[in-house]
Amino acid sequence: MRARLLASAIFLISALPAVAAEGMWLPSQAPAMAEQLKKAGLEIPAAALADMNAAPMNAIASLAGCSASFLSPKGLVATNHHCAYGSIQYNSSAGNDLLTNGFLAKTLADELPAAPGSRVLVMEALTDVSAPMLKGITPAVTGKARTDMVEANRKALISACEQTPGRRCDVRSYFGGGTWYLQRMIEIRDVRLVYAPAGSVGNYGGEIDNWMWPRHTGDFSFYRAYVGADGNPAAFSKANVPYQPRAFLKPATGDLKEGDFVMIAGFPGVTERYRTAAETTAYYSDIYPTQQRLLTEYSDLLMRESKTEADHIAYASILKGSDNYKKKIKGQMDAAVTADLAGTKARAGAALSEWAARPENRRTHALAISNYDAIINEELVATRATLVNGTLNRAQLLSAARQLFRWANERARPDAEREPGFQDRDRQLLIDRLNLIDRRFVARIDRLVLEQALAEVQKLPEAQRNLALEKAIAEIGLDRLYAGTQLTSAAERLAWLDRPVEAFAASEDPFIRVAVASFAADMVSESRMKDRLGRLHATRVPFMAAVQAHAAAQGQLLYPDANGSLRFTYGQVQGRPIEDGKAWTAFTTPRGLLEKESGKEPFNSPARLLAAVKAGNWGKWASPALGTLPVNNLSTTDITNGNSGSAVLNARGEFVGLAFDGTLEGMLSDWAVDDATNRTIAVDSRYIFWVMDKVDGAHHLLREMGLTPSQ
Amino acid sequence: MRARLLASAIFLISALPAVAAEGMWLPSQAPAMAEQLKKAGLEIPAAALADMNAAPMNAIASLAGCSASFLSPKGLVATNHHCAYGSIQYNSSAGNDLLTNGFLAKTLADELPAAPGSRVLVMEALTDVSAPMLKGITPAVTGKARTDMVEANRKALISACEQTPGRRCDVRSYFGGGTWYLQRMIEIRDVRLVYAPAGSVGNYGGEIDNWMWPRHTGDFSFYRAYVGADGNPAAFSKANVPYQPRAFLKPATGDLKEGDFVMIAGFPGVTERYRTAAETTAYYSDIYPTQQRLLTEYSDLLMRESKTEADHIAYASILKGSDNYKKKIKGQMDAAVTADLAGTKARAGAALSEWAARPENRRTHALAISNYDAIINEELVATRATLVNGTLNRAQLLSAARQLFRWANERARPDAEREPGFQDRDRQLLIDRLNLIDRRFVARIDRLVLEQALAEVQKLPEAQRNLALEKAIAEIGLDRLYAGTQLTSAAERLAWLDRPVEAFAASEDPFIRVAVASFAADMVSESRMKDRLGRLHATRVPFMAAVQAHAAAQGQLLYPDANGSLRFTYGQVQGRPIEDGKAWTAFTTPRGLLEKESGKEPFNSPARLLAAVKAGNWGKWASPALGTLPVNNLSTTDITNGNSGSAVLNARGEFVGLAFDGTLEGMLSDWAVDDATNRTIAVDSRYIFWVMDKVDGAHHLLREMGLTPSQ
Repeated sequence: MRARLLASAIFLISALPAVAAEGMWLPSQAPAMAEQLKKAGLEIPAAALADMNAAPMNAIASLAGCSASFLSPKGLVATNHHCAYGSIQYNSSAGNDLLTNGFLAKTLADELPAAPGSRVLVMEALTDVSAPMLKGITPAVTGKARTDMVEANRKALISACEQTPGRRCDVRSYFGGGTWYLQRMIEIRDVRLVYAPAGSVGNYGGEIDNWMWPRHTGDFSFYRAYVGADGNPAAFSKANVPYQPRAFLKPATGDLKEGDFVMIAGFPGVTERYRTAAETTAYYSDIYPTQQRLLTEYSDLLMRESKTEADHIAYASILKGSDNYKKKIKGQMDAAVTADLAGTKARAGAALSEWAARPENRRTHALAISNYDAIINEELVATRATLVNGTLNRAQLLSAARQLFRWANERARPDAEREPGFQDRDRQLLIDRLNLIDRRFVARIDRLVLEQALAEVQKLPEAQRNLALEKAIAEIGLDRLYAGTQLTSAAERLAWLDRPVEAFAASEDPFIRVAVASFAADMVSESRMKDRLGRLHATRVPFMAAVQAHAAAQGQLLYPDANGSLRFTYGQVQGRPIEDGKAWTAFTTPRGLLEKESGKEPFNSPARLLAAVKAGNWGKWASPALGTLPVNNLSTTDITNGNSGSAVLNARGEFVGLAFDGTLEGMLSDWAVDDATNRTIAVDSRYIFWVMDKVDGAHHLLREMGLTPSQ
Repeated sequence: MRARLLASAIFLISALPAVAAEGMWLPSQAPAMAEQLKKAGLEIPAAALADMNAAPMNAIASLAGCSASFLSPKGLVATNHHCAYGSIQYNSSAGNDLLTNGFLAKTLADELPAAPGSRVLVMEALTDVSAPMLKGITPAVTGKARTDMVEANRKALISACEQTPGRRCDVRSYFGGGTWYLQRMIEIRDVRLVYAPAGSVGNYGGEIDNWMWPRHTGDFSFYRAYVGADGNPAAFSKANVPYQPRAFLKPATGDLKEGDFVMIAGFPGVTERYRTAAETTAYYSDIYPTQQRLLTEYSDLLMRESKTEADHIAYASILKGSDNYKKKIKGQMDAAVTADLAGTKARAGAALSEWAARPENRRTHALAISNYDAIINEELVATRATLVNGTLNRAQLLSAARQLFRWANERARPDAEREPGFQDRDRQLLIDRLNLIDRRFVARIDRLVLEQALAEVQKLPEAQRNLALEKAIAEIGLDRLYAGTQLTSAAERLAWLDRPVEAFAASEDPFIRVAVASFAADMVSESRMKDRLGRLHATRVPFMAAVQAHAAAQGQLLYPDANGSLRFTYGQVQGRPIEDGKAWTAFTTPRGLLEKESGKEPFNSPARLLAAVKAGNWGKWASPALGTLPVNNLSTTDITNGNSGSAVLNARGEFVGLAFDGTLEGMLSDWAVDDATNRTIAVDSRYIFWVMDKVDGAHHLLREMGLTPSQ
């Protein structure tokens, strides 16, 4: 009966309030949506959501991979525990395990540097740059020439933008590259860990509960952004001072209840909602199953080979990421079958083709569709090869050596002509990555990871492989590769950063030798990729224009696929029917936490939390409507990876929680959203504040947010 | 964590609307409850619920064991499919299986006689007869003398009441025998089966879904009450005419939604809510486990030995009853542990004792409590023995012979002096029982049932056994017992009804010989029982008076334990939290039925129902709030066995469905009600009407109820 599910969802939808749920909207789309937002319950003007100079949007921050928000005038940043995981781990050691115990800085001086590379990126401006990005790009320009032109335009825009010191700018592509926005953010490089609850709060339920409901996870942590005394972003320094954001979110004062309007602002990573039937088939029959296998083998290896506590700490963050992604792909694949994704896509494609074939559309859109269909297979084959070749980058010293040699080659050229990722603006990030290896690397394990990857790439057709790389490694041999390298030392890795190409060519370090030997082949495949991308862009832009025109003809406004840029989504706090006669309710409470509690990981709450729960003294943090403390909640909002840590806001734009997960049934939402089943899981702000108040004694932070501890 | 459940239910209760749920109220209590009933949502005057001469109460009927109600001016009676099961089975044969296929009489002439003994008892009057019942019974009167006096008073009241022809009267005991009500009912003896849906509708989900939610059972059937042409009750005759009830229920016109007020009027059988801690312990550690074992062994035997279709049909009704009761006891035992019933009872007992020990109460109540505690053990031991000895009555020919011989002995005395159950008023019921055996009896199986029972009673202490009975059977031997008897013939059984004691004494029929041989011992134990009951009554009345006074001191009105008399319960349509973050919703819909549907029993809906569901044409029967057809619903009302078939009424006293089950978590409710978890399951009237309209074409019955078929 499973195939019935989508079809029969219509039984339910009619019973649900008509508040839009699907949609990762561009802030610039908000004014046009004023009516529907107001109807859904938004109490502040819709135009406020397009204004990067006012709350709530300029209180929203990116952590590059996660989302975050300012909660105090002194730069206090809230995000998920799992987003701060790397920094918590970075500050942990076998004798001082902050992952397990949590951490609370009593004073500013006690705050700990976040993991290298940590950034708080504060929204400052979001500008439509479609015209300058596509300048000079006529339909006739295709292949590598097109890619190069787009890249040049993009670099020019970014470079101009970053003339303002301390800014990080980015130009991202929307609707297949037909629309482009320049995102200007203040790049705060001195980020410090302020507070993380115990791991058994922040990661309560662990992998078992991941993607699950009911949920009882205190998935929150606090950073603080620091800047130089002049107020400008600066590298870590004891002399730095807390950043004063132009805006910060205020904790909600009213009771958040089931049915209430909520919205989420953050940086969703990638969605594939406009993929065609052919692309969908390739992903679900080949690319995802391959990725699933690669991740499983990787996780298995890391778990099997992590033998000491130090091994575990080193690979904890990587393993968590790998497991999380693996579970997501598995969920997507299962859900695609249940929901008949292939059929949905086929029907959507047929409808589009039918519409495009109409006399009035034929000239403009029919060709766009067939051109795209014709080109896509080549891209999908390349995507799979890239995926498999990517496993080599799991070997951290090999990856470092290749990045270093690429850097050496790029820096020989003027900055503006270099490949993105290897410009001066990227130098610090590279340094941070090179440093981070120290914390996440065990040579014995890294070697096994490399062996696994080599075995994998050798299964590819020769044309898709870097044979020179394989040959170089084979000649040196893995024993000498690891025994002979100096790159295990961070100082040595960093030392290579300023060396010329010639120094690399002359090096005897085995990893450097592999990097040098394999470089030319890498450049050839990169060139091929750029040619492909140029041809892809030339066909995808008209294809997406057809999709948009088709939607517009039905009076429908489209939002672009997620691409890591700032979006907002809105909906309402809402449980959902799970089967006929059964439903998820919108809130979990401490009762459920007690029922899950087993004393064993991952259901091993700290004794002080259990005591506080059993005392049942929720203080001011209880929900009047619920009669107890809300722990996690469900809403119909539309999020994906990258939204983790996003602030959940109520109708007045006040802080009511942090989004941290979806549910298994919503896993398919990267490809297609079913409003009836798709739900966001958030940790309710009242649980955050209660834990701070009654469990961890973070009273000074509550006061900093304008709250009064209840004792 | 299971033991937490009751304690932590307080987390939830506060979130639930404050509508009383516990309480099987006497109609006479309604006027005093006017304020709370109005507050809960009742729209008709509370006093109407005490008026047996007006709707809705005089539309309520009893089927003796089940509840029912009139739904048309022509005597159409609605009840559960499982309440009409015996009649459906009675009219079935191997070639014409109404249990499977259902039945619909196209015209009055097609209606089939219900199973022998079927009665529709129509409420006519309910009178407090405490004073005449307790006349002459001083505290000094105890033992058998007391029992005899109570019985004499009772028989006199009933006899006077039944002077009106066609009336069945009953005097029942409330609050441990301190209060008595005389219930006068019109006894309609010509009952006919009008309509039963297919078994796979009426019993959808079968034993698997029994006591479960979500539920999709069309547990309804229709009888019609017939009377003589003069309007008076009469035995079956083709000349009889449909009974015209003084009132009948009208189908609701509004949409029944979650949160709406509902009430149920019917005849709940037995509850034990005022049992003491000592009684509770005896039941849960000994009596119930014994009963559970006896039922399991009985069911196992019937299933194992039913080898032909005829065997199955013969024992289907018995087996269903046994399985149902077994599941209930199991559920009660499980729930008692989960809910810490023993602890609850111990605390309640301690509170009562503490209160009774206060100076102002000591003289009146403290002794009442200790007297009751002192006497109860003897009663509990006897209860267990009665239970085990009762297994002998499963052997139908043995039971028939004993009843016949008892009848012969009783009829030698004036009617007023006879034992209740053996008066002239009981003669027809006895005849019906003797007839019914033909439909539910297979000699080979009956013999095995008797062997099983004999093995069981022989484990009892000798003082608790009927040794004469065992000896007589042993002397005759089972082979001769079954081979030599004529009682397998209904005519032969009925022939014995008018014979004198002497004829029995002279009989060579082996079952009659056993009945005669065992009679004296039966009389001795009955006399002992009456002595016990007299002493029990003498202590229970003051004990219950103490319980009531204790409650009154706290401003609390008590309802009496269920005793098969007319009660009403009210609450609201409401799902319930089942675990933190998950809930039951108040309605199921055809979607869930489709999801359960496997094509195999018990999830094998008729093809015509499946087709109608798939067509999704709910016509006028859909709930606007739900957007689809409601199938079953949950409410917080308080029911137990005997309430099956009860009409569910809305705030205006209109018909909205038929109660048919509770849920596992509510199984303990016979002993203690947890408002947070206790729910009644009803089949929604709209599902009944939809099945009649779209599936079974019972359009003439819809019209008879004042409804218009939707096509």
